[in-house]
Amino acid sequence: MADAAKLMRVAKIITDTYKEGNDVVVVVSAQGDTTDDLIAKAKEVNQRASKREMDMLMAAGEQISISLLAMAIDSLGYPAISLLGWQAGFETNTKYGAARIKRVNPERIRAELDKNRIVIVAGFQGLNRYDDMTTLGRGGSDTSAVAIAAAMRADLCQIYTDVEGVYTADPRKIPGAKKLDEITYNEMLELATSGAQVLNNRSVEMAKKYNVELEVLSSITVATGTKVKEVTKMEKMLIKGVAKDDGVARVALIGVPDEPGIAFKVFSRVAKAHICVDNILQSVGRDGTKDIAFTVPAGDADAAVESLRDYCEAVGTKELRADQDVAKISIVGAGMETHENVAAGMFEALADAGINIQMISSSEIRVSVLVDKKDADRAVAAVHRHFFGE
Amino acid sequence: MADAAKLMRVAKIITDTYKEGNDVVVVVSAQGDTTDDLIAKAKEVNQRASKREMDMLMAAGEQISISLLAMAIDSLGYPAISLLGWQAGFETNTKYGAARIKRVNPERIRAELDKNRIVIVAGFQGLNRYDDMTTLGRGGSDTSAVAIAAAMRADLCQIYTDVEGVYTADPRKIPGAKKLDEITYNEMLELATSGAQVLNNRSVEMAKKYNVELEVLSSITVATGTKVKEVTKMEKMLIKGVAKDDGVARVALIGVPDEPGIAFKVFSRVAKAHICVDNILQSVGRDGTKDIAFTVPAGDADAAVESLRDYCEAVGTKELRADQDVAKISIVGAGMETHENVAAGMFEALADAGINIQMISSSEIRVSVLVDKKDADRAVAAVHRHFFGE
Repeated sequence: MADAAKLMRVAKIITDTYKEGNDVVVVVSAQGDTTDDLIAKAKEVNQRASKREMDMLMAAGEQISISLLAMAIDSLGYPAISLLGWQAGFETNTKYGAARIKRVNPERIRAELDKNRIVIVAGFQGLNRYDDMTTLGRGGSDTSAVAIAAAMRADLCQIYTDVEGVYTADPRKIPGAKKLDEITYNEMLELATSGAQVLNNRSVEMAKKYNVELEVLSSITVATGTKVKEVTKMEKMLIKGVAKDDGVARVALIGVPDEPGIAFKVFSRVAKAHICVDNILQSVGRDGTKDIAFTVPAGDADAAVESLRDYCEAVGTKELRADQDVAKISIVGAGMETHENVAAGMFEALADAGINIQMISSSEIRVSVLVDKKDADRAVAAVHRHFFGE
Repeated sequence: MADAAKLMRVAKIITDTYKEGNDVVVVVSAQGDTTDDLIAKAKEVNQRASKREMDMLMAAGEQISISLLAMAIDSLGYPAISLLGWQAGFETNTKYGAARIKRVNPERIRAELDKNRIVIVAGFQGLNRYDDMTTLGRGGSDTSAVAIAAAMRADLCQIYTDVEGVYTADPRKIPGAKKLDEITYNEMLELATSGAQVLNNRSVEMAKKYNVELEVLSSITVATGTKVKEVTKMEKMLIKGVAKDDGVARVALIGVPDEPGIAFKVFSRVAKAHICVDNILQSVGRDGTKDIAFTVPAGDADAAVESLRDYCEAVGTKELRADQDVAKISIVGAGMETHENVAAGMFEALADAGINIQMISSSEIRVSVLVDKKDADRAVAAVHRHFFGE
């Protein structure tokens, strides 16, 4: 949330839902400028502030936004009460800055709903067993919302974002992108992992685990959004979306001796450096050597190369390099499980567009290819056109 | 506190005290600009926000300042931990915006001190029996500090302000004003009531009740301040200070019928309007009528007149009026209890300066006079010169 006008608009959405006869619990994050301001203030006094004190500081951000939102709702003539994370029953572990929710005890929320109040809860925060403030880290507010919905067995958990729902591709890039009515948890997870930035995986995983029905929708327009749920209506749609992730790098080991145990030796070293490896490709051996390539988050590329340098020198590897000029293009959809020609359709679309595929990987409901970064947007457009038309 | 530089200066004062081997608990208020900013944000969404939500909002202010101060201390290489009011054990009643402290349970503070940490506590705030955030209202942070000092039986409670201590008069106005080394609780209370704005009465009353030794000193200079304690050294000083309060008004009823019960009838009406009456002067009856005058806070003058209008008309009062062009000048000092010529000295000084006295009132250790507002500063200077020289 940004300013008073936006607060009032959000208050209006909430009271409209309340007027329909619903019990309403709203989970709020801090206003973006507040967060930036607090981080700047911290940096002025201590560049390496302890995470415990950073959590104490950052938790003030939601405290401000929940009370302001309760005031805004009150000004519209509806009863509202704001609750901090701990007041709303959020117990977390002690990992400051990235705490995990251990339990939500919604007793207080229930009591306030029984008084017919709209309950405004500070997302992103909780209390650990030392009675200290913690924050949940990335995707924290969405996760807070899903956790409350699960604890209270809510009919629906609506996630308001700056987009109108989940699209078949990024609508800012692909004019023909369509908003989906429904998508399954697994499809949403694959899409998020593949670069779609609508929902954080953490909240979707929790929603899947506790079977919380989600709706992704916009706080600006009033259109129906996209439902995320276990089973979606049978549709003709083979795939649900095309996603691009250009935050990846490819690490390649060229000419490694073709011996047993090579993969273990390589990837145990990368794992030791705490780097997540995504797609792995290993060439068939030739002349007693083979090539290994894999993708990692772009920011970890140099560290991955570093973790392998000694080993590659010791065994006599021809070349060790990282390439950041790549992007991962993925198609996701439960429909492809039963339709073997989906992957072929993707490859055909890329071939017609003259785009070279560097690597391929797939899960049951996803196919991903690695292409040159400069071809990425064109690749998304070509694949999207193939499956969804103009 | 205003900015990073000020935070670092405060951190330095704290760590210097810690280095001397003291257990240090610091009570912090919100940064002034944060408070202003939060109030402005609230007003944008709701002009009449509930006090409960205002307390939730305002409490974020100290949350920000305590964590930043803990970070600042940490950056100097000393261990610090910030605690919210409730974490520090502050239990209050449910009066949002002006809560009273019911109990301080310093268990957590003790545990942190046992770990050799500097403890930074959010002043001004606590938790009520509904587990909701409350704020203490005016003078709240000083009161928080005294309450902790009392609960922990601290050796000393230092109150850092923007002045170097308690002076015999306002040093910005009276060049000859002297800083006092010591002052008793009662003298400090009379001075504060008489217009000196160094310490809030609430904190001094609590310090007196629990015999907490206070020191008022400046966070900018490093000079010794003024000690506030039960018994001060015997000194030649008859009075401790001259104070001015120009936030008063005089209400006068001229020509009220001279009948029994008049005073009761007048002041019960004023009390019903929740107005605090200070000095009262009643003339001797003449021609079957008498005059009654009293002082009230300037902001309450019109309401006081209003509360009496019907009554005055009913009994046939000649005139009912409020005069805001007045100021109260007081001298305070335990020494005057045994020196009957103190009040006379004050009147002599004012007479020599040609200043007319409108009303006089006194307690055991205070004499106050009401003068024309335009004469107020000259009156303070004349009285101060009389007792303290140039």
